[in-house]
Order: sequence, then C-alpha cells, then structure tokens
Amino acid sequence: MANESQGKKVAILLAPKGTEEVEFTQPRQAVEDAGASVDVIGIETGEVQTLVDDTYHGEKLTVEKTFSDVSADDYDALIVPGGAVGADNLRADAGAVDFIRSFFEQEKPVGVICHAPWTLVEADVVRGRTLTSFWSVQTDIRNAGGNWVDEEVVTDQGLVTSRYPGDLDAFCAKIVEEFAEGKHAEQARSV
Amino acid sequence: MANESQGKKVAILLAPKGTEEVEFTQPRQAVEDAGASVDVIGIETGEVQTLVDDTYHGEKLTVEKTFSDVSADDYDALIVPGGAVGADNLRADAGAVDFIRSFFEQEKPVGVICHAPWTLVEADVVRGRTLTSFWSVQTDIRNAGGNWVDEEVVTDQGLVTSRYPGDLDAFCAKIVEEFAEGKHAEQARSV
Repeated sequence: MANESQGKKVAILLAPKGTEEVEFTQPRQAVEDAGASVDVIGIETGEVQTLVDDTYHGEKLTVEKTFSDVSADDYDALIVPGGAVGADNLRADAGAVDFIRSFFEQEKPVGVICHAPWTLVEADVVRGRTLTSFWSVQTDIRNAGGNWVDEEVVTDQGLVTSRYPGDLDAFCAKIVEEFAEGKHAEQARSV
Repeated sequence: MANESQGKKVAILLAPKGTEEVEFTQPRQAVEDAGASVDVIGIETGEVQTLVDDTYHGEKLTVEKTFSDVSADDYDALIVPGGAVGADNLRADAGAVDFIRSFFEQEKPVGVICHAPWTLVEADVVRGRTLTSFWSVQTDIRNAGGNWVDEEVVTDQGLVTSRYPGDLDAFCAKIVEEFAEGKHAEQARSV
C-alpha cells in the first residue's frame, strides 16, 4: 500500500564524502513513497558529493541537520547507506555512532546496506544478530559477534541489511515493511 | 647506511583501485634507496589509477605480477599500502590474503599502513600482536584479537604499522630497519 509509513519520521545518514549515491537516493524515495518524511543527517550541514562506482561524479546532496541537532527520540526509523569511504567516515564520528546505537536502544527499525554495517560494528550492536553486508565486511561482522549470511536482504527483528546496490529493490521493499511495523523489542537485545 | 637492504627482494601490493599514492611510492622509494629490489604485485597486471585524498588523481602505477604468478617464498619482506577502497579490494581477494598470511608463516617482516591492516584482520594474523592503523580500523583490529595502540609507528617483532600518510617518514625508516634484520620468529606466532 502507498501510505503504510504515513506520519513516520525517518532519519537517513549522509557522509561528508563517499556515500554511494543510489544507496541513499533509492531508499529515501522508497520510504517517502510510502508516506514517511525524511531528514538527512550528517557530521556537518551543507552540500556533499556522492559517489558512483567509487568515483566522485554522483549527485550533490545536502546534509540538513547534524548529529548534535537531533536525537533518535525524534525519529521512528533509520537508514544508513554505504560506500566504503562514506561508511568509514561515519564510523569514525562518535556522534554518528551514538545516534545509530540509540535506535537499537529504543527498539526502532534500522536499514543498513553495503559497507555501512561497519557503523553497527563500531556501535557494538551486531552481537548475536543475523545480518549481511558487502562481502569484504563479513569478517569484521563475525569478529564483532554477528552471524553473517550471504543473502540479498536479511531481516532480523527490525534490522534490515543488504549487500550492495544490486540488492536495492529487495532492501527498499523490506525497510518499508519493517518501518511500518514500528518498534521491535529484539533491537535492544544486542546493545 | 645506504645499502642495508642490498640483495633483498621486497613485494609491494597495489590494488585495482583506491591505493593511496604516497603510501605506495614513499615506502617503495625508501627500500629501493636501501638497496632492495621491489616487485609490484596485484590482482591483475596492468596500469591502475592511484588516489590522493580519496579522489582519483594520483599517479598511474603498474601491477607487474599477480598473486598467482608469485609466492612469499620469492621475497624477503612485504609492504601493504592503504587507502580505504584499496585495502577493501585487497582483503576481498583470496589470493592477496593467502599471500600476506604466508609472510607471517615464513616469519618474514611486513610493513602495513593506514587502512591496510584490514588485510591482516582478513588473514587472521593480528591475534596477540600490537599494532596501529588508521583510527577508523581500530575496532576491527581489537575484535580480531589485536592490541591496537595510537602511535605514529609500531614495531612488534617484524610487524611494522603506521596510521596515515603523516606517519610515512617514521614508517619508512622502521621498515628499512626491520627488513634489514630479516626473519623474526614472532611473526609466525599469530598465524
């Protein structure tokens, strides 16, 4: 249905550099089409250059609010797009990591794709959870206590993960579904 | 002294994309200046574009041999340059990871900088070792059993690591020293 996320507020993260364009634009569109309103959160406000196939010719996108402006209390759900450099930048920022962890503490649904599960490793919220990621990140997830599986989309009680841009159709359908369901108590178990 | 590595053969890795230019060129120059001969090893032979500050305008460099052409038996020491995308590409290649692990098995000295310690995590050779890396990689190293410290250069019995291009002078001096010393039995302890 077209309005299953009507009234929901969703946060989507945008790194200062290296966010993979389509992993940002397609999930944002999907949750907006389902009726959600979306805020773009980053380390600093302003325009950033996204990435297509690891080169910097993606769309220019704008960070609207910083991690110090907002709290997970303000949102119903979170999307973290990938890109190796983008995810690496986000995990290195304590504000980003704390913001992400708060969604788990508050049992709220989270969608994370490609290299972005590194941010979950940094937040130490993958212990005992089943998830996927870009293939190169699997050892880091297993070492952090996660159960890594190789599937286009994995849903574990409010945590939705996918491997790369080729999985986006399945990822977007599943985040819309999980976000519509609302809180999942299991999200707080790994925190 | 200028010829402390005379007669030594050194392998340096070059990723298909995303190797940080100066983390390749400066260590290669340092060991060549000390008298070593250097082979450039990668996933496929041919020209690759290196990276400066995460954008693709670095020098074009050439991969001379692939991981299937060579073995750690052929070399006295190994250098693995960083760059987030470059290191991520190398860790995803089984040939690269096996090649790296073999240097540890053969007790040979290894120099690794910036994001490249991800390749050591993938090879599972950091357990019980003391090392540094780019700051964002520290959690992955700790989760893999390594003792991560924040210093410009860390030498642990044949394993030399540094954090980023700003540490290159110290890194280069130390790899020349460790490579000249030759084998370190401790290198095989973590394999």
